[in-house]
Amino acid sequence: MHEIAATLTQQLGPDKVATDPVLVREYSQDRAPDRPEAPALAVVFAGSAEDVQTTVRACAAAGVRVVPRGAGSGLSGGAHAVKDSVIISLERMNRILDVRAEDEVAVVEPGVVNADLNAAAAEHGLMYAPDPASFTFATIGGNIGTNAGGLRCAKYGVTRDSVLALDVVLADGELVRLGHATFKGVAGYDLVALLVGSEGTLGIVVGATVRLRHLPVKVVTIAAFFPDLPSAAAGVLAVGRARVQPAIMELMDRASIEDADALNGTAFASRGSALLLVQTDGFGADAEAAVVREVLREAGGALADESSLRAGSSDAERFVLIRRNNRGSGAEDRLRVGEDVAVPRSLLVDYAAELERIAAEYRVGMKLVAHAGDGNLHPTFWAEPQPGEEEAAVADLDRALDDSVRVALAMGGTITGEHGIGSFKLRWLGWEQSERVRELQRGIKDVFDPHGVLNPGKAI
Amino acid sequence: MHEIAATLTQQLGPDKVATDPVLVREYSQDRAPDRPEAPALAVVFAGSAEDVQTTVRACAAAGVRVVPRGAGSGLSGGAHAVKDSVIISLERMNRILDVRAEDEVAVVEPGVVNADLNAAAAEHGLMYAPDPASFTFATIGGNIGTNAGGLRCAKYGVTRDSVLALDVVLADGELVRLGHATFKGVAGYDLVALLVGSEGTLGIVVGATVRLRHLPVKVVTIAAFFPDLPSAAAGVLAVGRARVQPAIMELMDRASIEDADALNGTAFASRGSALLLVQTDGFGADAEAAVVREVLREAGGALADESSLRAGSSDAERFVLIRRNNRGSGAEDRLRVGEDVAVPRSLLVDYAAELERIAAEYRVGMKLVAHAGDGNLHPTFWAEPQPGEEEAAVADLDRALDDSVRVALAMGGTITGEHGIGSFKLRWLGWEQSERVRELQRGIKDVFDPHGVLNPGKAI
Repeated sequence: MHEIAATLTQQLGPDKVATDPVLVREYSQDRAPDRPEAPALAVVFAGSAEDVQTTVRACAAAGVRVVPRGAGSGLSGGAHAVKDSVIISLERMNRILDVRAEDEVAVVEPGVVNADLNAAAAEHGLMYAPDPASFTFATIGGNIGTNAGGLRCAKYGVTRDSVLALDVVLADGELVRLGHATFKGVAGYDLVALLVGSEGTLGIVVGATVRLRHLPVKVVTIAAFFPDLPSAAAGVLAVGRARVQPAIMELMDRASIEDADALNGTAFASRGSALLLVQTDGFGADAEAAVVREVLREAGGALADESSLRAGSSDAERFVLIRRNNRGSGAEDRLRVGEDVAVPRSLLVDYAAELERIAAEYRVGMKLVAHAGDGNLHPTFWAEPQPGEEEAAVADLDRALDDSVRVALAMGGTITGEHGIGSFKLRWLGWEQSERVRELQRGIKDVFDPHGVLNPGKAI
Repeated sequence: MHEIAATLTQQLGPDKVATDPVLVREYSQDRAPDRPEAPALAVVFAGSAEDVQTTVRACAAAGVRVVPRGAGSGLSGGAHAVKDSVIISLERMNRILDVRAEDEVAVVEPGVVNADLNAAAAEHGLMYAPDPASFTFATIGGNIGTNAGGLRCAKYGVTRDSVLALDVVLADGELVRLGHATFKGVAGYDLVALLVGSEGTLGIVVGATVRLRHLPVKVVTIAAFFPDLPSAAAGVLAVGRARVQPAIMELMDRASIEDADALNGTAFASRGSALLLVQTDGFGADAEAAVVREVLREAGGALADESSLRAGSSDAERFVLIRRNNRGSGAEDRLRVGEDVAVPRSLLVDYAAELERIAAEYRVGMKLVAHAGDGNLHPTFWAEPQPGEEEAAVADLDRALDDSVRVALAMGGTITGEHGIGSFKLRWLGWEQSERVRELQRGIKDVFDPHGVLNPGKAI
């Protein structure tokens, strides 16, 4: 047992420190395609803010690094172990401390699962808006670490827009409170927004006050099949031009529909080569849905039987669930990589065409789903090499990924819409941000963590 | 003429540098109740990012400080001159460079007036959501500097939620681009959110890409008079409990209604002692308004004649305009101070009662308006001393302000919901934030501006 593991076991008790190699290896990585630098030295299962403080202090004193972890559902390596590190799992800190329905806020520990918070909020007619595909197991703390998005962002915002205050353990173990419990507040710099999406590199979130939104009184689901991707993308723009703001507007290409069919036993691919899935919600849901149906029909969409898409009906739910699960649940690897770029919405069609060109050029597979309402695309690239040709295939896949990122940036886009940089996307960060902008971020990192204790080498 | 003025005149040309004492004095302050440290040495009217870079470089080299300024509509002293400073007015950089309707974004220079951007967006069925009371003359750059709020925040968010990318001149004159042109983006730390609300202390915004929202297809205005403030506040909570999210929900107390009557020749005070002004908008506006009317009636509200409140009717507009102009247009001073606290919404009634107690205790006048939907209150305190008793009155007023802030903090609130800290509220910042949190902010300031060139002594 490494010395730090012994120290932590002594300070926290044996039930909070794990060194079993199998468990440690499992906790040393998230779902990113790349692999961690090295397995961690130990995993701490923190039960309280004090446990986190104790761990951070002990690690800082011993020159050991600390990597915070929620459910490990991240897709960019933000929770990957680094060399000489201890993982702090926040999953046991899973209490919903307060749901203040009149104020429309909740106070939670970081290990609360997104879906559990939503279930608790629903009892009061409220919801927690950010809904990453992993919401059934991802934690609020992890969502905060990556500034997680999801399907409902275009209407309800991303994680940052729902976080009001944070309790944070700093790199020297001190506990501070950032932000305010009110919807509005502009006292000093917005450190909450700075911490959200910082992937545990500036502090470890041990508590959060989040804003809740109204659970919509009504939800209408519309599924429209199109003959091809360009016409579906034109449908996206037509909905925008009609000035309807859907809660969800998801785009799936033919390969994604076929994948979904294989996974779910459906036969959607026989109905079209691109699927646009739209949900309107709230008091105007019906009126908005009527407009959406009209413009999608005009754009050449074939609407799925409306009676089968009544809100809450099994078919409507099934459509949305199929989309939510579309990435599949397995971890990715270097032969199968899901991307997460965003482009200005008007360029969805052009970008999708570029993706097809890139896949053909490098002879790799490609399928596409997109949060079309906000221009956030998740193409998945994969290679299926013959034995002995793996390395060449990986090189081709990497070149395809590089090109897909380069084109997104040339269109005014970003290399990550909602997954974060972690370790996996660091190689592209310099393509998006100038050296001076990166230097400013390193300066901020130094202010918060001068000795590089917290998740070093990630995010920036 | 001070040496820096001569240098800048030589480098920028005489039409961009003003040293006339009357003009300089006018540009050396915003609308805060406190006074600037000292008048500026000169005012630069920048016409381009290059002008800003030139000015910052010249000032940095000469050890002169730089204070950026939009329209000077701020209420906390963020644009007040500091000792040995040059004001950079951005008001001439007032071009709307692009309205990309399909993408629902606009690209603007910082001196664009909020209302002008809204007018340009409206041609495309879009709007720029943040709407501070000063929107007819305040600039987007100034709104970004203070993270301005307004009436529509509870539904549409504050300035930070509408800013996607910024072009920023740093303290050494270098120009950097922060953020992304897409709705979503999580590459690295959220420096845009850090800059928004930083009051020109970290950089000078010379360009912004902002998100636009849909202009609502319909707006319904509801005005309800209540016998007293507690019953109106109960109405606010009842609307929330009915899970309706109004676009606007404004509360005025009796003194504010009387002021409005005097200013506008109306006789609203005869109809009740508290006014709740609600707007619903969008496709669900009518359905939402029906619910709002019902719950407000149940809460004891007397609804103004509905036929006179048709959307767009002069009466409906008049109600909203009266509220928007309620603060009056004069600058404040030490005998008349408008506050800007926020408390959790459920405590509106309790806090309003405390305000009345405090005003009585210190024998000062008090009137109250509130963005009730998000718990952001604007009480105004004033004193009308007899000649010779001014100093005692100021002392009483200050004690009343201090108490009002203390009580808001004790309720879990904040000392500023949307006006910013500037210079005026610095005395309370330590009551809200721990020394360590303030130290982190000073560290960030040092990273961006190690020599204290940019608006030193403000915001943090």
